[in-house]
Amino acid sequence: MIIVLKKDVTQEQVQHIIGKVESVGLTVHVSQGVERTIIGAIGEEEILRSLPLDALPGVEKVMPILKPYKLVSREFKPDNTVIKFANNTEIGNKKIAIVAGPCAVESRDSLLKIARLVKEAGANFLRGGAFKPRTSPYTFQGLGEEGLKYLAQARQETGMMIVTELMDPRDLDLICAYADIIQIGARNMQNFKLLTEVGKQKKPVLLKRGLSSTIKELLMSAEYIMAQGNYNVILCERGIRTFEDFTRNTLDISAVPVIKSLSHLPIVIDPSHAAGKWALVPALSKAAIAAGADGLLIEVHDNPENALSDGAQSLLPEKFKALLQDLAKIAQAVGREI
Amino acid sequence: MIIVLKKDVTQEQVQHIIGKVESVGLTVHVSQGVERTIIGAIGEEEILRSLPLDALPGVEKVMPILKPYKLVSREFKPDNTVIKFANNTEIGNKKIAIVAGPCAVESRDSLLKIARLVKEAGANFLRGGAFKPRTSPYTFQGLGEEGLKYLAQARQETGMMIVTELMDPRDLDLICAYADIIQIGARNMQNFKLLTEVGKQKKPVLLKRGLSSTIKELLMSAEYIMAQGNYNVILCERGIRTFEDFTRNTLDISAVPVIKSLSHLPIVIDPSHAAGKWALVPALSKAAIAAGADGLLIEVHDNPENALSDGAQSLLPEKFKALLQDLAKIAQAVGREI
Amino acid sequence: MIIVLKKDVTQEQVQHIIGKVESVGLTVHVSQGVERTIIGAIGEEEILRSLPLDALPGVEKVMPILKPYKLVSREFKPDNTVIKFANNTEIGNKKIAIVAGPCAVESRDSLLKIARLVKEAGANFLRGGAFKPRTSPYTFQGLGEEGLKYLAQARQETGMMIVTELMDPRDLDLICAYADIIQIGARNMQNFKLLTEVGKQKKPVLLKRGLSSTIKELLMSAEYIMAQGNYNVILCERGIRTFEDFTRNTLDISAVPVIKSLSHLPIVIDPSHAAGKWALVPALSKAAIAAGADGLLIEVHDNPENALSDGAQSLLPEKFKALLQDLAKIAQAVGREI
Amino acid sequence: MIIVLKKDVTQEQVQHIIGKVESVGLTVHVSQGVERTIIGAIGEEEILRSLPLDALPGVEKVMPILKPYKLVSREFKPDNTVIKFANNTEIGNKKIAIVAGPCAVESRDSLLKIARLVKEAGANFLRGGAFKPRTSPYTFQGLGEEGLKYLAQARQETGMMIVTELMDPRDLDLICAYADIIQIGARNMQNFKLLTEVGKQKKPVLLKRGLSSTIKELLMSAEYIMAQGNYNVILCERGIRTFEDFTRNTLDISAVPVIKSLSHLPIVIDPSHAAGKWALVPALSKAAIAAGADGLLIEVHDNPENALSDGAQSLLPEKFKALLQDLAKIAQAVGREI
Repeated sequence: MIIVLKKDVTQEQVQHIIGKVESVGLTVHVSQGVERTIIGAIGEEEILRSLPLDALPGVEKVMPILKPYKLVSREFKPDNTVIKFANNTEIGNKKIAIVAGPCAVESRDSLLKIARLVKEAGANFLRGGAFKPRTSPYTFQGLGEEGLKYLAQARQETGMMIVTELMDPRDLDLICAYADIIQIGARNMQNFKLLTEVGKQKKPVLLKRGLSSTIKELLMSAEYIMAQGNYNVILCERGIRTFEDFTRNTLDISAVPVIKSLSHLPIVIDPSHAAGKWALVPALSKAAIAAGADGLLIEVHDNPENALSDGAQSLLPEKFKALLQDLAKIAQAVGREI
Repeated sequence: MIIVLKKDVTQEQVQHIIGKVESVGLTVHVSQGVERTIIGAIGEEEILRSLPLDALPGVEKVMPILKPYKLVSREFKPDNTVIKFANNTEIGNKKIAIVAGPCAVESRDSLLKIARLVKEAGANFLRGGAFKPRTSPYTFQGLGEEGLKYLAQARQETGMMIVTELMDPRDLDLICAYADIIQIGARNMQNFKLLTEVGKQKKPVLLKRGLSSTIKELLMSAEYIMAQGNYNVILCERGIRTFEDFTRNTLDISAVPVIKSLSHLPIVIDPSHAAGKWALVPALSKAAIAAGADGLLIEVHDNPENALSDGAQSLLPEKFKALLQDLAKIAQAVGREI
Repeated sequence: MIIVLKKDVTQEQVQHIIGKVESVGLTVHVSQGVERTIIGAIGEEEILRSLPLDALPGVEKVMPILKPYKLVSREFKPDNTVIKFANNTEIGNKKIAIVAGPCAVESRDSLLKIARLVKEAGANFLRGGAFKPRTSPYTFQGLGEEGLKYLAQARQETGMMIVTELMDPRDLDLICAYADIIQIGARNMQNFKLLTEVGKQKKPVLLKRGLSSTIKELLMSAEYIMAQGNYNVILCERGIRTFEDFTRNTLDISAVPVIKSLSHLPIVIDPSHAAGKWALVPALSKAAIAAGADGLLIEVHDNPENALSDGAQSLLPEKFKALLQDLAKIAQAVGREI
Repeated sequence: MIIVLKKDVTQEQVQHIIGKVESVGLTVHVSQGVERTIIGAIGEEEILRSLPLDALPGVEKVMPILKPYKLVSREFKPDNTVIKFANNTEIGNKKIAIVAGPCAVESRDSLLKIARLVKEAGANFLRGGAFKPRTSPYTFQGLGEEGLKYLAQARQETGMMIVTELMDPRDLDLICAYADIIQIGARNMQNFKLLTEVGKQKKPVLLKRGLSSTIKELLMSAEYIMAQGNYNVILCERGIRTFEDFTRNTLDISAVPVIKSLSHLPIVIDPSHAAGKWALVPALSKAAIAAGADGLLIEVHDNPENALSDGAQSLLPEKFKALLQDLAKIAQAVGREI
């Protein structure tokens, strides 16, 4: 930690700051420049992070040297994390993971139909929400456990692995009993109770970036999960909130190379939620693969006009199939495969 | 709902769209302009909101006529909502509510000391967190029920009403047993499960605006609570996330007059979390009162350097006292009182 | 234009609003709903845009039906605009335009060296700034006309077309005398004087999106140029300002498919300025081509450590060459070529 | 400057970085920590800013110690800058500057009428634009020099000082001949040519913060002007661009105390452009004064419905008059006067 002092700092204040740093077991190195005095705090930086050093009299600013996460960092583990699943699929390896399905599980028939179609098109993971508390209290809220059962049936029939969201810590056991990957939604990226719970169990976690969260904060939330013992975390970029309002959110495509450089964890892209419009999904999916993403989450519905949620951003199965064919070419161009 | 059609819309598409709108019980009015055909959908607009109309072939855009909330709106209830408390204080009336206290309850002694000091300075509500899951998994996480008990003791001793945050639906009964106002934090503004739970009980709810939530979304979340039967909702602006990084967040002071015009609910300001720096709290507090806010949430700590969380943004008790004296003058200037 | 009236609008106010709309030559259609009265204004919407209709008593909101631009829209001209250059290159057709070079022209030797290298690697346009007023008043400000002369020499030697920025209307003739494409920088996207000037001359214009401009505003600025008679406008996405601070700006990759759907104009991507870090440029370039961009602007410098500006985001020539080889494969995968 | 090295930095890279820093005349201090090696560069930090140090192999990040501006900083000049005008008014002293008038000068009669009304209400500066290039190429573009003449007549008649915007460097002499304060608009905050020009002349400059500019960048632009010799700079906060769309921009009220702490320059607020709606102007004006602003820019029009620009955000003269009476009370409450 580097502590930059104010120009008019007093000798007493300097001593007080030094004392503070030393009191938690770090050593200090004071450097008197022409314009500023600087204190370098040497030792476990983590300890200093929770001290309000920038509130001490005489302190101008405090600059951490290290990143605020360890387990997620590529320094800690240089090789890519590859997560393996029962059906021999992997996430984080050469083959790109295609997670597809409806926003919400709406009925047994509808889910199984979509599952067959996306499987046939080339998807290897099935997504679908069983709990869907929505922005308006007056709309469809999900089928609950019934929905989870349909997902399990779809897995049995198609062999696809199941991705579904956990929103309430009370549903943890239920979700764990059915899902292959537990999704933590964007709104819960900093729900630390939920992160702790999923960190204590074994199923892989797909962690979506919050709408107003930086990449650093996403990595810190992944660290939160890993610190509990669960190292199987998949990061997901799904658009951030900006002033641009033509798209629902702004897909931060740079997150792919940035995360690849900072972390060993797999990173997937959700173009459907980012764009909010199905017509933009193909271009964003192509961009994601070209940029190096390890997978895609794509909403597919056989009857978007009657979808109970997010119809406007769902691809028709035939469009999804055509897209996967296009994506296969791009995957090959970047040394990957679909 | 106004549905603007594409220039090259076909007659078939028009019929399909009309059929869709009529199928949910609304009537249509088609208007052929020079540049565009427009369909007006007349009837319960709420029903149409969940239909993916903008995904129908031939639709260019869909423009709702009504606001997506009712109970929170000033049209629905022209008079200001005033919430009354056991200690004869009110929120939403002439007297401005001053909620003060530490970020987290750290110990019995520390809490009681701060409580006495802020009471003496003029606060009528005491804030303090008992559950503090934090950004880093390695820092202080709150005292839990013990913290709630200390808050209750502080209430008994000082007569101040207690504001504390609910983060986990499993803690609802516990929090309800101790708190006078249940706070829903910024990160949970769209945690619809939590909103439903606090909507079903009777204690007033202080609902903080999410970091990346619009005012409209804040009002929709309040609607969510009210739709369950709890009409005692207090809105709180605490800064939004922007590109400006000198302050932790950007206090959206305009939210005060905007919410006053759209809604009858009280609106309070949290300058401490918005700024992230105690030195900015006085100016922002003054601005809030001048703009018409019904209250303030201010972090106060008698020993910020040793605070276990948010020390950098906590005012010293003597600074808080001086601030309240300044605020009293501004309150009077705008026809209110502290 | 649809004018939604307030619930409590008076008959007098309705008449006043109708009179206002009719006074500028439009006809009105009043529609009395259960919740709201709506006035549809039929005729030239453009005329109404400059009236402060939303300030009239009784008006709740005003919703335009048409887009605020015409000439740039795909409706107006369904086919892609293709801009042709002296050296038989085109922008907007199958072959992707590669614009490369240093941020600023620094010396004759350096420019010619870089020009040869990027030409050899596959670039067909050379970029370089001659006027470089910078954020700090104390740094290199560009070579001025001397720099333009070196660019012309590089064109003569390599056959590449020249792209350089106009910042001051007083430099228009000078820039026109040397450049093949006149760049309008992000900070000048809404410098309407400059837009008017470049609209009145014949050279193609490369218009960069402002850091805080929406896609709609970018298209309106292009309309501004086209309205003066110059139809050869190339749009450029170069990152927008968001809360994310790991990258200098956030590349809005969605702008590519969005602009392709709204407009016939070519759209190119500048990954160097968006990222601010050379290591991210390859991934973003690949994403851009995969998403359908018509070209790339890439900063290349043979000695980035000594570059007088933007060294941190400049690719070394050998990295640039390797990138173009990778891009060629992706271009082919999406039916284009480099 | 602190240079943090990568964990796996080689000895060669360290030597190369040291050489680079020493080559520009600074000395280095290398500090070997447990996790990282750090290089402190001691000497004129400004020189290092233009080097792409973060692009050097082995560098993880570069952290400047000093602020990137000097002349504007409160360290450089502890006392508030007070700017004095011919009519005995001042900006930056106890009395708050009220700048009022129409967005654009529309006609002689209209301007003089508004001028008399705002003067009578208590304004001491008259604002009005003579050059108004607008977002749409099809709307009113200002009266040019004729408008400046009307402003001069209004000054002669009312004694108010004139504030008007410079947009084109070619208009500098013309504007200087009429204006008492030269306004640099938000879109030109980083138009460095324009900053240089107004820095070289003597008239006070009112510098508006760009829509997507940080406070630091605003101060750097002010530094740009002052570096040319003109120390009479007035800063203006007028709203920044965020995701919130109920208001046109988000007024960053925190900018007032932040700028007061960092700089000695006066800071004024423009609530009209920030809000975009006249009904919000009173609350924002009150907040501004309470927060410590040195002045307000308020759009006033006697006939907003027929205003040629920005009618929706213009106050009626009688509302402006009532507002000033309210503001006088708040000014008094914070030890200022109107």
